[in-house]
Amino acid sequence: MNTTRAQAVLADARVDVVVGTTYANVFYLTGYVGFSQRLMPTTQVYAIARADRLDEPVLVAPIGDLDMHAQLPARIGRLRSYGHFYVQLASEERDPEQRRYQEIVSADPGGSAAEALLEELGALPSSARVALDERGVTAAVRDAVRARFGERVVDGAALLDRVRMVKTPEEIRRLEAAALVMEGSIARALEAAREGISEAEMARVFDTSTIAAGSAPYFTVIAFGERGALPNTVPSAARRLRRGDQIRFDVGCYTEMYASDISRTAVLGAPAPKVRGYYEAILAGEQRMLEVMKPGVRAREVFDAAVRATQEAGIPHYRRHHVGHGVGLDVYDLPIIAPGSETPLEPGMVFEIETPYYEIGFGGVQVEDTVVITESGCRLLTRSSRELAVIA
Amino acid sequence: MNTTRAQAVLADARVDVVVGTTYANVFYLTGYVGFSQRLMPTTQVYAIARADRLDEPVLVAPIGDLDMHAQLPARIGRLRSYGHFYVQLASEERDPEQRRYQEIVSADPGGSAAEALLEELGALPSSARVALDERGVTAAVRDAVRARFGERVVDGAALLDRVRMVKTPEEIRRLEAAALVMEGSIARALEAAREGISEAEMARVFDTSTIAAGSAPYFTVIAFGERGALPNTVPSAARRLRRGDQIRFDVGCYTEMYASDISRTAVLGAPAPKVRGYYEAILAGEQRMLEVMKPGVRAREVFDAAVRATQEAGIPHYRRHHVGHGVGLDVYDLPIIAPGSETPLEPGMVFEIETPYYEIGFGGVQVEDTVVITESGCRLLTRSSRELAVIA
Repeated sequence: MNTTRAQAVLADARVDVVVGTTYANVFYLTGYVGFSQRLMPTTQVYAIARADRLDEPVLVAPIGDLDMHAQLPARIGRLRSYGHFYVQLASEERDPEQRRYQEIVSADPGGSAAEALLEELGALPSSARVALDERGVTAAVRDAVRARFGERVVDGAALLDRVRMVKTPEEIRRLEAAALVMEGSIARALEAAREGISEAEMARVFDTSTIAAGSAPYFTVIAFGERGALPNTVPSAARRLRRGDQIRFDVGCYTEMYASDISRTAVLGAPAPKVRGYYEAILAGEQRMLEVMKPGVRAREVFDAAVRATQEAGIPHYRRHHVGHGVGLDVYDLPIIAPGSETPLEPGMVFEIETPYYEIGFGGVQVEDTVVITESGCRLLTRSSRELAVIA
Repeated sequence: MNTTRAQAVLADARVDVVVGTTYANVFYLTGYVGFSQRLMPTTQVYAIARADRLDEPVLVAPIGDLDMHAQLPARIGRLRSYGHFYVQLASEERDPEQRRYQEIVSADPGGSAAEALLEELGALPSSARVALDERGVTAAVRDAVRARFGERVVDGAALLDRVRMVKTPEEIRRLEAAALVMEGSIARALEAAREGISEAEMARVFDTSTIAAGSAPYFTVIAFGERGALPNTVPSAARRLRRGDQIRFDVGCYTEMYASDISRTAVLGAPAPKVRGYYEAILAGEQRMLEVMKPGVRAREVFDAAVRATQEAGIPHYRRHHVGHGVGLDVYDLPIIAPGSETPLEPGMVFEIETPYYEIGFGGVQVEDTVVITESGCRLLTRSSRELAVIA
């Protein structure tokens, strides 16, 4: 967690306590990795963090999941479990992981998440203003909190989005690791590129590589030829690679809780002049972003520069709604590089930058890379060639 | 969709219109497979279905995702897109998929999801009572709908849960396919079982097999020996398989949108008498469920029978909070087989039944299978041996 930034954002919003409720926000505030919450987002887990004690949050979580806290200990001040779960205890247990679990699971707290949250909030100073992340809490619990505490409780997701915009060195390390996994999987998939392989077969090579790297596949858009015009192409078992096809990758994974979302384009055989020309244009648009991104520049200025550069470099009719977005615990963190976004870039922000182009009947070309804003500019976290890949 | 059941449930609740808002509920009502919504659940997609025209729902979705509707056409009466997305159009396009996409993406609807929803609800008869699935709609949109329409709009997630409890033949086919994928991946993982393999290595074999079957890994709990006591074991690169270890699988995937969640237990070498004895007890508990599950029996009666059978067969201190749950588009569909659940079983309900046992210092034993309720009893959808697997 970026504690300094969190304190500033909460102070600015005159909030004394923030309650994270999503899988990502609970992890951000506590380091707790939920199990059921990832599978079933209605599972209620809360990280209650006082602005003056951000490193001692209270974690409210179902006792049936708390072996996760024994395996991957979270940074918390206090654990408040709820519900029932039965594990037979040992008379004496020496293994540290098992002993931690035994301590946690010896409790039989009962009760519900809502009861636990209302009680924890009720124990706060009555003047405390609370920002409750409205994205992960159930509607019923949010209603109950508002009914009980009224205007003292405001929605909190936007505040946490603002905190999370600027990454810590550890977050940047993980985002770089995630990007490298995706680059490796693209390389493995391209090694399998040959006439007759289907999109679905190449996607399996890709996902297998991601898993071999210890990461979780998240989305795998691999599109051949004209299917590249479909932005979210579902890899098809019927569409097989032909000479001259472009291969558009738009792929993402999770590595150590952090997302990656990058793109590359390749061609089997000699690229048609239109493919080469359009690729050069979008690459020029991306390159322009690398030149202009630095602290103080506004996201909308980056957008304007990228679209203009792409138009000037060979796609005069180029239009986009955004040309990039923050990346972190979510694949779309703030800010978005889009018209109207006045957010100035800050050192430590990490973006996926992209200038995709889709044309029905032609296909698509895309390049997307991960960059971190530095004190004086920006730095690519991806390492592979950004040129159009030509497969002999 | 189980249309007959949906009509009955909505009539019973005196609801004229149901609005699905989660990835699963939108799919259930329309067949629409979202892209961004799966990755970013705050993406707003709505399926607005009138009880008297359930097969003609209105789909509200961001235009940037609507190539998904071109690729996998949904069953909808009308499409209402919102937002901006730019794709260069072709002068003439003959490929059916590309032509469908061109028709959809030619619109530039603008506006927001909230505006689209408020307008669509405003166009309904003013007497219409609306059930709005509160799980996928943002808090802000829910607040806006309630402010505008007041008590005419109620929360709808529980109604959709009730409809989805009883599966159609096509849903049962997909749930069976998902279970078979998991059984195949367990078999591949057990083929790799040898002294010295780590939990993490075996999990990679498992996930690779799942991907090779065209399915998406969802959760992969593979625990050796004492680590089996951790219900949600994160496969460890450090814990290596030793002779005499039990191997506990609790694994899930998604196949054609439907979930599976099954378990098996194996031992490398001769099982210790305690492992064999406890396994026989939990298998007896599961077997008892297969004997008692039939239409009209209440979920709590199944629970009582399973716990009692497990206790009598060799774990007198056996306790559980549930011994199974429905499975469908979510890994936990209703009903849950738990104390207090008065829900009677009905033909077409599909369950994951399980009697896991966890003991710190000992480990875990677990068996979990997929069963469908038939007219006269129940039928296993899994096919592999449910006995303790002994690996030579």
